[in-house]
Amino acid sequence: MDRIELNNKLDKMFYPSSVAVVGASEVPVKWGNLIVTSILGWDYKGKVFPVNPKKDKILGITCYPNLTAIPEPVDLAVLVIPATHIPNALKECVAKGIAAAVIISSGFREMGDEGARIEREIMDIARQGGIVFIGPNTMGIASAHHYFEALPTSTAAKPGGLAVISQSGNLGLQIIKWIAQKGVGLSLYAGTGNEAMLHASDLLAYMGRKDEIKAIAMYIEGIANGREFMEIAGEVTKKKPVVALKAGRSQAGSSAASSHTGSLAGSYSTYTAMFTQVGVIQVDTPSELMNVSAAMTVLPIPPSNRVAVMTMGGGWGIVAADQCEDKGLALPELPSSIIRELDARLPQYWNRRNPVDVVGEGDPELYLHVIRALAEWDEVDSLIALGIVGRSRYVEDFIACQERFDGTLYSKELKLSVLKAQIQAEDRVISGIGKIQKETGKPILVVGLTEEGLALRQTSFGPVVTLSTPEDAVTIIAGMAHYGMYLGGLKQES
Amino acid sequence: MDRIELNNKLDKMFYPSSVAVVGASEVPVKWGNLIVTSILGWDYKGKVFPVNPKKDKILGITCYPNLTAIPEPVDLAVLVIPATHIPNALKECVAKGIAAAVIISSGFREMGDEGARIEREIMDIARQGGIVFIGPNTMGIASAHHYFEALPTSTAAKPGGLAVISQSGNLGLQIIKWIAQKGVGLSLYAGTGNEAMLHASDLLAYMGRKDEIKAIAMYIEGIANGREFMEIAGEVTKKKPVVALKAGRSQAGSSAASSHTGSLAGSYSTYTAMFTQVGVIQVDTPSELMNVSAAMTVLPIPPSNRVAVMTMGGGWGIVAADQCEDKGLALPELPSSIIRELDARLPQYWNRRNPVDVVGEGDPELYLHVIRALAEWDEVDSLIALGIVGRSRYVEDFIACQERFDGTLYSKELKLSVLKAQIQAEDRVISGIGKIQKETGKPILVVGLTEEGLALRQTSFGPVVTLSTPEDAVTIIAGMAHYGMYLGGLKQES
Repeated sequence: MDRIELNNKLDKMFYPSSVAVVGASEVPVKWGNLIVTSILGWDYKGKVFPVNPKKDKILGITCYPNLTAIPEPVDLAVLVIPATHIPNALKECVAKGIAAAVIISSGFREMGDEGARIEREIMDIARQGGIVFIGPNTMGIASAHHYFEALPTSTAAKPGGLAVISQSGNLGLQIIKWIAQKGVGLSLYAGTGNEAMLHASDLLAYMGRKDEIKAIAMYIEGIANGREFMEIAGEVTKKKPVVALKAGRSQAGSSAASSHTGSLAGSYSTYTAMFTQVGVIQVDTPSELMNVSAAMTVLPIPPSNRVAVMTMGGGWGIVAADQCEDKGLALPELPSSIIRELDARLPQYWNRRNPVDVVGEGDPELYLHVIRALAEWDEVDSLIALGIVGRSRYVEDFIACQERFDGTLYSKELKLSVLKAQIQAEDRVISGIGKIQKETGKPILVVGLTEEGLALRQTSFGPVVTLSTPEDAVTIIAGMAHYGMYLGGLKQES
Repeated sequence: MDRIELNNKLDKMFYPSSVAVVGASEVPVKWGNLIVTSILGWDYKGKVFPVNPKKDKILGITCYPNLTAIPEPVDLAVLVIPATHIPNALKECVAKGIAAAVIISSGFREMGDEGARIEREIMDIARQGGIVFIGPNTMGIASAHHYFEALPTSTAAKPGGLAVISQSGNLGLQIIKWIAQKGVGLSLYAGTGNEAMLHASDLLAYMGRKDEIKAIAMYIEGIANGREFMEIAGEVTKKKPVVALKAGRSQAGSSAASSHTGSLAGSYSTYTAMFTQVGVIQVDTPSELMNVSAAMTVLPIPPSNRVAVMTMGGGWGIVAADQCEDKGLALPELPSSIIRELDARLPQYWNRRNPVDVVGEGDPELYLHVIRALAEWDEVDSLIALGIVGRSRYVEDFIACQERFDGTLYSKELKLSVLKAQIQAEDRVISGIGKIQKETGKPILVVGLTEEGLALRQTSFGPVVTLSTPEDAVTIIAGMAHYGMYLGGLKQES
């Protein structure tokens, strides 16, 4: 099957007009129930055909005894029946003219010789029948712009620009749950399972061509064909960032990976070299994978590793500077022009260095003035602003504290208006940062006194990314700068 | 002043029977108001005397024109007046027989020559007058068992076993805010400011002797007297863990640190060598400082770096194994005795390795059986259990998803009972883990599908620490193992 035919069939998989679920069930703990529930419980506009010979209806909709009995065309079949029944079901898919299948069932290569035999059998059936399948032993797929997910748990993620490819179902699901909770926009999710037919590289090639996708996150345990991956990734990274976590870099992790998906893990340094060569951004943990890729769906890409930091408190600036150096980012010294400009606004004893310590001054206009001066400085391409969001928490704590000793001291209206003013001031700062980010084309990462981790704050100038720790901001900028410098190198070559 | 006299005066500072706030104010944004509010808004049982010559009452209580006018003895003075007035105020403190002062005001060494001169002046006054002060340029202190805090923001942290010493006010405050939000028990907090008189080492020595303190967290920019620190830390770590973040390890960070508190930063490798020699646990970020020290107030200390991992999903186990190796932890191979024991409970294709993948089996009794088998294995001293808390979120999402397409399918009672059963099952698992942790004396870190980061789950067998990411669990165990092995080495020497 050539790449064009494959991509057409993948369109049927991720944007089906109709889907059949073979092994649909009425029993809430069974996968055949969980998956039908996820499909029905979102805004999927296509047709849904449960298949189960023992039922006339499932979850209130007509159920069919087999695929052949469905009176309409079917684009996608989701198979949730025991492994031994998969070969026949796949033959039925072929007979019905179904383009694509998601094989959820386990019981294949990962369970021993007999499973491996069945896995080879279904590969033969698929190749001969011209059907494309993902899995087996996958937890499913999601397609947020199509409001469609065949997953054992509903995410109902907001449609957006992030695609996720995961060689671990459990880990992939948790990443898209996180994404959904944080309001990061999802495009496609693919759990690749045993990769009997479709490999992670195939999905990367497919996702690379979708304009709705702005960044791709990959959790990788092993890539079967390194050369193919490099060719594909090299093409994709010309157009959009690819962020990868290669798991199994340790001895124990590598052994665990080989027994998990049976993949040839390969040496970690080989992967690192491969990623570097084709501009794939490498991260170390699932949290980093999520943060870096999510931020890259909305932020401009800096062409260098040079960063300016503004901080509300000296300690946080020092911690951020240390983290920058750890991650290969540079903090240029402030030029005299910026020192002069900030001299006019900051207390005379300000530190005159990068990180710029605004010495606890609490004026939103001052923050924005400093941030603009730094963003317009041509020696840096990214900014980190520390300590300027989440301060309303302090106001809340102050009010609660007052009320504990004398609730009558100030009127409720006054207290609420103070809190509201603080929240509004913070909104103005975030909006102002959005404006500066848009006008200068430089990403500005905001680190606050919050507990929520990564968040996307919407402004009329586009989203602003906020985080709870400086290290998270630094990791994001390091990933983006790595990619920006790779792109710069490509340009020079051509 | 000898150490005994110093400690007696520090008792007056942290456990005062009466406190005067010089510079108390009625205006809510002023520090003199914020600090009086924090003191009054907790359960402090001592007397509070605001001092301000322009007011008769402040926040409803009698205000005095100066310290001398207070008709009762005062243990502690908190000074929140401009730097130029501090020398006179400190002389008044001496005249009044006050044992200790917290000098919040800035405008000293950190602001130039004139400030440095005043700083030397107050040091002379204090030495001659026999008064002990912390600061200047500190954001204050807290003493949770005494329900007392002289801070610009209220934490009202639960009394407990953690003490925090911070050379950055901003950063220290945020750490104790985090601690309070997470329900970690606090003992003492000290922001050391400019360290004109009291150094971080003095506070370490003092806190090392308090039985209520189970672990000490230090944020360090620079230690003036390395030899003294080593002597003190070496004594303290015989009795309780000390966790330190040394900031300013990078070029930019070190420059920022020297301009921040004016400390001689010294080379990072010198600090690392110093910490290693005296058994201080070193961490890299404020989040790690908080997580490791908080966990160590409640968990048993493992004598080795050998860890067993149990996981609900293969991917998470691999990620955890990689993190373990990064942080110097070892994952021994499972002995045949444990393999045989788990063969009887797990599906036949289970991985028979450490990390043990329970292959998605959802039975709480099974988790506890596996965890007990691993905890009783004498080749490991710590455990990590991945993926077994936070699953009620999945049940909630399932219910919400069902309701989106047909709210009438199941009764509300049924749905609530399913959710309740899931929450109870999780509580049973956590309680069971608490029991195993207590019986085996091995820490068991639980990593779940949660968003909250570190949390302490109370059980009748003591607290169980849960986290959101494997790397957080690994960092905590690595810190504890480092300390446990240091203690083991001390024993061998003696």
